[in-house]
Amino acid sequence: MKRYLKTISSDEALRLIMERIEPGLQEESLPVHACLGRVTSKPVYANVSNPPFLCSAMDGFAVLYDETLGADLSDPLVLTRDSDAFGVNTGDILPQGTDAVIMVEDAEVSGDSITIRKPAYLWQNTRMVGEDVIEKDMLLPVNHMITSFDIGMIISAGITGITVRRRPKVLIIPTGKELIDIFKDTQANLAAGLIDFNSYTLRSLSAESGCGPVISNIITTRDDLSETVKSGSTEYDLILINAGSSAGTEDFTESVINDIGEVIFHGISMMPGKPLLFGIVGGTPVFGIPGYPVSAVLTFMRFVRPVCERFLRIKFFTRTAPCTTAYKIPSRIGIEEIIRVNLISNRGRYFAIPLPRGASAFSSMARADGLIRIPEHKEGLTEGEEVLCELLRDEAEIKGCIHIIGSHDLSLDVARDIVKGRHPDMDLISTHTGSLSGILAVRSGVAGFATTHVLDDDGITYNVPVVKKYLADVPLKLIHIAKRQQGILVRRGNPLSIRGIADLARSGVRFVNRQFGSGTRILFDHLLDAEQLEKQAITGYDREESSHTAVGILIRESIADAGIGIYSVARAFSLDFIPLAEEDYDLIVTGDVINDVRYSILMDTIMSGEFSRRLENMGGYNTSATGMVKYGTGLEDKNF
Amino acid sequence: MKRYLKTISSDEALRLIMERIEPGLQEESLPVHACLGRVTSKPVYANVSNPPFLCSAMDGFAVLYDETLGADLSDPLVLTRDSDAFGVNTGDILPQGTDAVIMVEDAEVSGDSITIRKPAYLWQNTRMVGEDVIEKDMLLPVNHMITSFDIGMIISAGITGITVRRRPKVLIIPTGKELIDIFKDTQANLAAGLIDFNSYTLRSLSAESGCGPVISNIITTRDDLSETVKSGSTEYDLILINAGSSAGTEDFTESVINDIGEVIFHGISMMPGKPLLFGIVGGTPVFGIPGYPVSAVLTFMRFVRPVCERFLRIKFFTRTAPCTTAYKIPSRIGIEEIIRVNLISNRGRYFAIPLPRGASAFSSMARADGLIRIPEHKEGLTEGEEVLCELLRDEAEIKGCIHIIGSHDLSLDVARDIVKGRHPDMDLISTHTGSLSGILAVRSGVAGFATTHVLDDDGITYNVPVVKKYLADVPLKLIHIAKRQQGILVRRGNPLSIRGIADLARSGVRFVNRQFGSGTRILFDHLLDAEQLEKQAITGYDREESSHTAVGILIRESIADAGIGIYSVARAFSLDFIPLAEEDYDLIVTGDVINDVRYSILMDTIMSGEFSRRLENMGGYNTSATGMVKYGTGLEDKNF
Repeated sequence: MKRYLKTISSDEALRLIMERIEPGLQEESLPVHACLGRVTSKPVYANVSNPPFLCSAMDGFAVLYDETLGADLSDPLVLTRDSDAFGVNTGDILPQGTDAVIMVEDAEVSGDSITIRKPAYLWQNTRMVGEDVIEKDMLLPVNHMITSFDIGMIISAGITGITVRRRPKVLIIPTGKELIDIFKDTQANLAAGLIDFNSYTLRSLSAESGCGPVISNIITTRDDLSETVKSGSTEYDLILINAGSSAGTEDFTESVINDIGEVIFHGISMMPGKPLLFGIVGGTPVFGIPGYPVSAVLTFMRFVRPVCERFLRIKFFTRTAPCTTAYKIPSRIGIEEIIRVNLISNRGRYFAIPLPRGASAFSSMARADGLIRIPEHKEGLTEGEEVLCELLRDEAEIKGCIHIIGSHDLSLDVARDIVKGRHPDMDLISTHTGSLSGILAVRSGVAGFATTHVLDDDGITYNVPVVKKYLADVPLKLIHIAKRQQGILVRRGNPLSIRGIADLARSGVRFVNRQFGSGTRILFDHLLDAEQLEKQAITGYDREESSHTAVGILIRESIADAGIGIYSVARAFSLDFIPLAEEDYDLIVTGDVINDVRYSILMDTIMSGEFSRRLENMGGYNTSATGMVKYGTGLEDKNF
Repeated sequence: MKRYLKTISSDEALRLIMERIEPGLQEESLPVHACLGRVTSKPVYANVSNPPFLCSAMDGFAVLYDETLGADLSDPLVLTRDSDAFGVNTGDILPQGTDAVIMVEDAEVSGDSITIRKPAYLWQNTRMVGEDVIEKDMLLPVNHMITSFDIGMIISAGITGITVRRRPKVLIIPTGKELIDIFKDTQANLAAGLIDFNSYTLRSLSAESGCGPVISNIITTRDDLSETVKSGSTEYDLILINAGSSAGTEDFTESVINDIGEVIFHGISMMPGKPLLFGIVGGTPVFGIPGYPVSAVLTFMRFVRPVCERFLRIKFFTRTAPCTTAYKIPSRIGIEEIIRVNLISNRGRYFAIPLPRGASAFSSMARADGLIRIPEHKEGLTEGEEVLCELLRDEAEIKGCIHIIGSHDLSLDVARDIVKGRHPDMDLISTHTGSLSGILAVRSGVAGFATTHVLDDDGITYNVPVVKKYLADVPLKLIHIAKRQQGILVRRGNPLSIRGIADLARSGVRFVNRQFGSGTRILFDHLLDAEQLEKQAITGYDREESSHTAVGILIRESIADAGIGIYSVARAFSLDFIPLAEEDYDLIVTGDVINDVRYSILMDTIMSGEFSRRLENMGGYNTSATGMVKYGTGLEDKNF
């Protein structure tokens, strides 16, 4: 693979970028009510006071205080309605020529005669002009992002329009012959290209960063790119080219920018994000955004968003929280790494579970709770290290999340859908590390919830022996979720006529395996032993996938010919299924979470008729004992 | 004042409301890229896998692994380009009929001949179908608010449109003869009515809560209200009537709802917010929102927003932080009070400074950092009490705020504008409690910054004696901001011919005073003593305002005739000015903040040419010694 001649650190890159950005944009005038989230380009001063008049602070009668002097208990004064006493409600403007209010309780009213027995004093029971806002007061300074309350306050001061910073205009240019825009080209053959989703993610992120983004047509030639950037530079404040800044044969962003402008740098020592390019064309900043989707959004967040902030003269605050790494996270010295993580809230702290690290694993961005930065000079993070996490979600959301580690099953999706349907402020996330890994996460105190299906050496018993062996000291319950069918998945019609485990070793059969430590792998190895088959005889034994569905899709797509998986996946992908075993899919719940609302909501879900019904409908499940506690260490359980 | 027959607690009110709200709205179909912030009405499942094909994970040559078996160091195999070896870049789809990739480094290329010296294995250097997203995977559950990352992920799975919850339609009905809509009635005489800003605040809050709000025409009669609510109930999901739910003579919301629907409750034991009304008309929930602007937004936040959440099936998370009350905050038993506060970040904690409590003091909503709730059963909060604050701003924003307590001066607005102009992530807030109160806040450790202008008993020296007296034990610096002119403010042309202090005691002169503890009040009392004048001889001596501008506007509006204030205010309001004294307006900075970035930014601001220039332009300031340290206790000062 070609390397960049020179890469620079992310800090240095940011410095070089900011050096070239002119702060502040032109302004535009807008009606105040359209200014939510916009930024003041100059201070806003009150036009009129609020209240603009002397107002009554009570229900009663407005009078001129001077005319009430002398009123006395023994010598009452009689005023006449609408002549020298005027009925007012709280908040009413005081009638011309009055300067005090007598409370209705202090007046004896009889027809139009109002009798008072003590004098009023100047400004009695009134609200002064400008009590809230005073004419000429500075309501908002420059560079202030406008809230709903600000909108009310500005209007209360008699202002209908203000000037705010114009939104930065961002041009997003997708490049690449293989790309398809499925919104513009609705008849596209999805088998003939790759869907461009980066442009839409970048557009949404730009809009969230206060910009007005536009996506150009997909550019496929060097000349078109040059033309689009050149004409864009006269109209837009910022240009994002995606991708073409890597080192492949069709990556011509660098040479184009060199021709029509100036390349400031190309290549940074940050991963994902290495191929980032930054240049200037006709005074307009141009980014060559890497093509891998995760690299694209991480470079946007780290380098493009600060440019938007500089244009608008604001700061988007990010929140951080300390967390503890649940596993060792290796990293190479000399390169800064950004790791997507899920955070498990357990034992009063957050445990960081790294998500898939590939720059193409984009769904992990949507799933991540936060980002951890491993600086250039560090050789990764050890297990149990305390680090700061940049949060992508609210802490309340993270704390309300039922996070299950361990074995994968489609029932977890069903449970998530039920939990979110009934409790919109909760969520259920599952990390598919395999059964044994889930058990180890329970043992180390990281996980409060884990799913497992581990066959004992006896070839009969599930889960209880392994829990007793590894988790003897952990207060926990083992709760039955469902029995499920495991078997061999093969293409519809079983073209290779696979009848059992022995056939998987036949030449020409491409098998795809599950990861080490998964219950399915343990079952498969057990079955191989039982039939005295060599692992090496099986083509594809070393290719590991981490979920049932990953195995299913490879068979459906004829990339592999066989794998081990659950019946519900065979049915979902219209595969044929050769049954091998019925196993217990169970849930471990620790004492740490057993009195937590997350536990009671999860149990309500598992025990619900809806859960059992939806599992039975998917096929391959037996829910007759769902919810049964199979083993427990006598925990205090307030919920059940 | 009329009382409600029955008031209920806010918790009971919320319970009664939620009982009547049908959860979940109809759904609508939208293009995925338009779904940022929208809520899924059903789970989203992947349409295609990502990647949808077997892809190359390296730059090199795609081959059929079977055809490479036998290649060996001593017996190399020669493949032919585009016949049995196909050039691929990283990420390319593997050509039909290939299943492995040989890295370019492992191939000897000579024209169309590609020589390899070891065999490939099945799926070598490939990315599997569905490595990121697998067809039929649940991408998002129901009731999920969609992020930018979600948008990318959904599009990557081949989906162009999804169904989301329709935005709740909210009808906002302003009522009241006195109201003016300054957007619709641009020629309105602002002296003849009150500006309706509540409707626009409620509209913005509704939009922020995920709704589609509409403001009706201003309603002035009972019949029109009845008609508008009745027809609105067939078209809208939620109706907010503002106001008319109080107990005044024109408050007919209750009787209208009783006629055409059902009143569920009227009156809650929460302040601000007491007159809240809730009812149902034709199945549609209707709120009678109180008219006082603070009551309107606080009842929206506490009662209407949860209804929006229930409609959309989401939760808007609020953040809280512990804080310490800087002052005693009294409250009546039997009523829940919501207190707006500013938070001062000092000594590693937040100190809560209560803002004006009146329900009409709306600008304090815009200024507040958070809300403190005093429950019904508590008789207020003591000074130094630890309470939870619901945050209205980001903590980073609060921590970056230079909060100055004490004496009011227009120079603080100038400083704020300069700070925000140069440092958009910082702010400067001033709380005008008066000089002595600022000094006490420094002594109690609440304030790190305070402004003061206190004349010593000697009638000559400013600030140093009072600082030595009250702050002997506090490490601090006293820094000179500016000299400024104090004098008597009178209307342009001086119609009452006021020449000096003695004239303020004349009959017919309406004086407006400054608050006890303010430097201006101390100066005034000193001058009264010097001229041997009785305080009680001065009409209006007991009416206190807490800023120079508040005094200025009352004189300009002919509500008062005279007051004591600074020259710059006289000039801003075109008043005449009778000079009395030149005084030192100074800044106290404590050791707690002296090594804080806020201190260095404030000092940069005060020392800047721009600050002096703008002060001199306002008139009445002398900046010849601005920035001079007048007194200090030998603090370690890293900044200067």
